Amino acid sequence: MEQIPNIDINTPIEMLNAVNQNTLMGQLGIEYTAVDEQSVTATMPVDKRTTQPMGILHGGANLALAETIAGLGSALYIDLNQFTAVGSQVAANHIGTATSGLVTAKATIIHQGRRTHVWNVDICNDQGDLISSCRVTNMIIER
Amino acid sequence: MEQIPNIDINTPIEMLNAVNQNTLMGQLGIEYTAVDEQSVTATMPVDKRTTQPMGILHGGANLALAETIAGLGSALYIDLNQFTAVGSQVAANHIGTATSGLVTAKATIIHQGRRTHVWNVDICNDQGDLISSCRVTNMIIER
Amino acid sequence: MEQIPNIDINTPIEMLNAVNQNTLMGQLGIEYTAVDEQSVTATMPVDKRTTQPMGILHGGANLALAETIAGLGSALYIDLNQFTAVGSQVAANHIGTATSGLVTAKATIIHQGRRTHVWNVDICNDQGDLISSCRVTNMIIER
Amino acid sequence: MEQIPNIDINTPIEMLNAVNQNTLMGQLGIEYTAVDEQSVTATMPVDKRTTQPMGILHGGANLALAETIAGLGSALYIDLNQFTAVGSQVAANHIGTATSGLVTAKATIIHQGRRTHVWNVDICNDQGDLISSCRVTNMIIER
Repeated sequence: MEQIPNIDINTPIEMLNAVNQNTLMGQLGIEYTAVDEQSVTATMPVDKRTTQPMGILHGGANLALAETIAGLGSALYIDLNQFTAVGSQVAANHIGTATSGLVTAKATIIHQGRRTHVWNVDICNDQGDLISSCRVTNMIIER
Repeated sequence: MEQIPNIDINTPIEMLNAVNQNTLMGQLGIEYTAVDEQSVTATMPVDKRTTQPMGILHGGANLALAETIAGLGSALYIDLNQFTAVGSQVAANHIGTATSGLVTAKATIIHQGRRTHVWNVDICNDQGDLISSCRVTNMIIER
Repeated sequence: MEQIPNIDINTPIEMLNAVNQNTLMGQLGIEYTAVDEQSVTATMPVDKRTTQPMGILHGGANLALAETIAGLGSALYIDLNQFTAVGSQVAANHIGTATSGLVTAKATIIHQGRRTHVWNVDICNDQGDLISSCRVTNMIIER
Repeated sequence: MEQIPNIDINTPIEMLNAVNQNTLMGQLGIEYTAVDEQSVTATMPVDKRTTQPMGILHGGANLALAETIAGLGSALYIDLNQFTAVGSQVAANHIGTATSGLVTAKATIIHQGRRTHVWNVDICNDQGDLISSCRVTNMIIER
């Protein structure tokens, strides 16, 4: 996941969202809502952009959301002039679902190494139920 | 992943694609291209619907594609009046990328049990390079 | 993972350990140290039973440890006369290592459903560094 | 997984097995049986060294076996004076079991990159049934 140069945890959220307009994130309605030194939070709508034919949130939408915010987080924590963060491995359990409203995802870094970042991403529905829990491994590669 | 009743491997591909119009699959341009007793194949465009800000295919789009065709495959192989296939676990390695054209995904069932289906999903770019290899576990649940 | 009948979180730890004598757990020196309503803790020695040729803890020993305590936890939380817990899926990140002493693993249940239990297992070395973080999915099956 | 210097696919199998004597592999009875340019094969006994209290093969033993042969394979394919292969991520589905005899595992490399090797490891019981299918990701790191 190549990212945009010159961003860090002080970059305004609006700027981080602005570059997503013509991307998968725009297509799915994903919006970042908060970033800090350990986590990134975002929301995604449960509607025809993200559901399967029965109107239930598609598990794959959750995976896209998880990989998105883990990717942003790694980009925020490295010097993008020197390094790139590349999504390498994802593992997820789907344990609930959503049929309306927004889901909220929070990525928390559990390993911030020189070569890899490992993130835990928990996604909850509007009722606060955990519906997916994901692990995303990003490789940190010298440009 | 609730699915549409009364489909099997003899259902015309156009019908399988038709129900995806107002879904995540429609949003990402995913189209099924072939189904048989062991596999499901589909394509997905690499364009602003599926890329990240640098114009590279988003790993999360691959995961959505993988879970989509594994979900269809399980739905095709069970009696939907009696059972539902629910995406339960996904694990994936991203090992390449794509910046244009279409990617092609093939899901092959590696375990067709009473309680679970396990699928291997390989995704290749236009040059035929393997860019993602995924394992999708679906639970088969009595209605 | 078939388990021993009639155990729950009030079963003495010595009894839980006693049945492991002629098993993988005995072979690796795994010992349960605590169980409660949400977690199971165990230790494993870092010695010739669990290391690779260079004397470093083998990642596979960590996986065996993780699956062991998640399996015990699920067995403790179900009625074993009616159900069995079967290890179904494991995903793990190795992010550190150990060369001596004991490692300590703590399994915490993150989803306790009717059909599946999902556990997070964190394993730390003697210095308290997180060296492996694992997700174990057990299926709960009627006998 | 640090490995032994100066080994490649022409190293006699007996030598590869000899260094495992005082290791996890020795403890579990794991023996390499064949190596070539794309795969590594090994066996493991199903007995009190590898089973759980009910006498069934422990899923964790399979994971140890999978990580072992993927680790050997990566070590065989790199120059160990310059690089080290480190087990980084493992994901596995358990889909069957064994109660006696030997299990046979075959690791096949599906991505041999500069920075990572990704292996598929299939493990079969004496009847030839696939009982575990695993993905092992090794990082290739400069010494």
